Amino acid sequence: MLGIDPDPQALWPAASRAGARAASSQQRAALATRAHCLALIDAAGCCCVAAKFQLACFERLGVAGAQVLIELLRYATEAGLLVIIDGKRGDIDISAAAYGQALFAGFQTPFGWVDGMHADAATVNPYIGRDGLVPLREAARAASGGLFVLVRTSNRDAGQLQDLCTVESSGTTRAGLAAPPAGSRARAVWERVAEIVAELGAGCLGGSGLSDVGAVLGATVPAHLRRARELMPASIFLMPGIGAQGGRIEDLAPAFEPGRAGGLITASRSIAEAHRHAGGEPGDAARSEAERLRTIAWSLAD
Amino acid sequence: MLGIDPDPQALWPAASRAGARAASSQQRAALATRAHCLALIDAAGCCCVAAKFQLACFERLGVAGAQVLIELLRYATEAGLLVIIDGKRGDIDISAAAYGQALFAGFQTPFGWVDGMHADAATVNPYIGRDGLVPLREAARAASGGLFVLVRTSNRDAGQLQDLCTVESSGTTRAGLAAPPAGSRARAVWERVAEIVAELGAGCLGGSGLSDVGAVLGATVPAHLRRARELMPASIFLMPGIGAQGGRIEDLAPAFEPGRAGGLITASRSIAEAHRHAGGEPGDAARSEAERLRTIAWSLAD
Repeated sequence: MLGIDPDPQALWPAASRAGARAASSQQRAALATRAHCLALIDAAGCCCVAAKFQLACFERLGVAGAQVLIELLRYATEAGLLVIIDGKRGDIDISAAAYGQALFAGFQTPFGWVDGMHADAATVNPYIGRDGLVPLREAARAASGGLFVLVRTSNRDAGQLQDLCTVESSGTTRAGLAAPPAGSRARAVWERVAEIVAELGAGCLGGSGLSDVGAVLGATVPAHLRRARELMPASIFLMPGIGAQGGRIEDLAPAFEPGRAGGLITASRSIAEAHRHAGGEPGDAARSEAERLRTIAWSLAD
Repeated sequence: MLGIDPDPQALWPAASRAGARAASSQQRAALATRAHCLALIDAAGCCCVAAKFQLACFERLGVAGAQVLIELLRYATEAGLLVIIDGKRGDIDISAAAYGQALFAGFQTPFGWVDGMHADAATVNPYIGRDGLVPLREAARAASGGLFVLVRTSNRDAGQLQDLCTVESSGTTRAGLAAPPAGSRARAVWERVAEIVAELGAGCLGGSGLSDVGAVLGATVPAHLRRARELMPASIFLMPGIGAQGGRIEDLAPAFEPGRAGGLITASRSIAEAHRHAGGEPGDAARSEAERLRTIAWSLAD
């Protein structure tokens, strides 16, 4: 999967000249970002099944960034890519429903239909709990889309909360001093999230046998993948962290146990910035790197 | 605090007529939303110290919503209100930094300075871990702003992860069957988050003795507030859940122990929709409800 996380400091040189005549720095940055992302999709899209857009990179470009994002989402869809919107949203029910409207089909208002971003899938955050995820799943499902719930992420401090060892308990501890009940079963926080993912995705399995609620699992923690597959047998695993974050694609075999579609490996900087290491024209280097990653991933799935 | 969560289905009648001539339904909805929010700020802003903008409600209005949000943020600031952007963002370091640029001052690009949203504070999600929060804190701090980290939220299923009982452990459990170490200390997940909040806010106390890293604590779980105050003695508590979600303002006294500024009570629907219960003109009803909530809150702090 092609990760699209554009940084105005690191655009491909030809793209930086787009928009030079625009009136504001916001517009110049957004138009150059647009040209960069179009070229990236043209170069590497053919080697990928999906494009993942990091919303933060567009939000920091303001209104012009919002406009460019809409254009790029449409371009990626028309290029035959699945579109994954990586915003890691999460909120209480009424606000989660609003995010669902924004990310997927849109919504009806007294002023007419207001279109959404038409994602094929979106990343979401589980901290709020199940009732914050259900409206997002409903919005995704109504649009034949899906979710990827953060389960165990790829960053250095991911384990600080996600790996905490939990035991069965009747509720909150008092004053932090209560002992856990004797004989209680221990599970990591991320394993509890995995159980929610499996439950939310049940009952909507497509022809492939995969559910519409997937999991984000960092490629930097391959040791967790086998356990994650036990807990979420039908979920697609979205795996960031290859390359710049240190993950190795060769370690991800358990994700592909249900078949090729069981895992989506996402690479952003390692594709977009391949020319910095490999030399040559940025587009050629990006395509070569995307092809290399695809070949390794398919070999794991066979 | 005035919560601004506009729903195109429930705008004040006079506002619904704004933008009637705009070309697209997105623009009509966005302009009507803009008129509604301006009237709400005019009516109730004088009784509040801050305005909290729910990003989901603007994101679902697309590019036109992004434009309207920028105008409203500026209007609220010029009306003398602190501006809190409620987006509950959270991502790995590089993307968290991009959100920080979007939410606070903006950032330098080769195309010139691109302005951010100039929030006084933003809500953020802790699931990623400490290294996902630090770049947001840095962006906030550089702009003399702050963060509110989700600690214990106000929704029905909030406890599903946040109240899980955790014990000290060397890492992830295997196969979910390991027993917790004997004699280990039990704490809820939210208490662990509270400890991170206290640590992140240390070292930057203003003249009031309050830190720049606050906590979101649902007004629906007042039993947690005293324990939260022990764990986060210098944090401002942002408390949603009054009114529509069932929380009672009278139960929130522990939040105000450090003084009036120790707690921010946020009400959205109960102010904007006060006229549905109280009758009368929407603006008058909103102002009366905001005044009523303020009087109760101040009485708790005295």
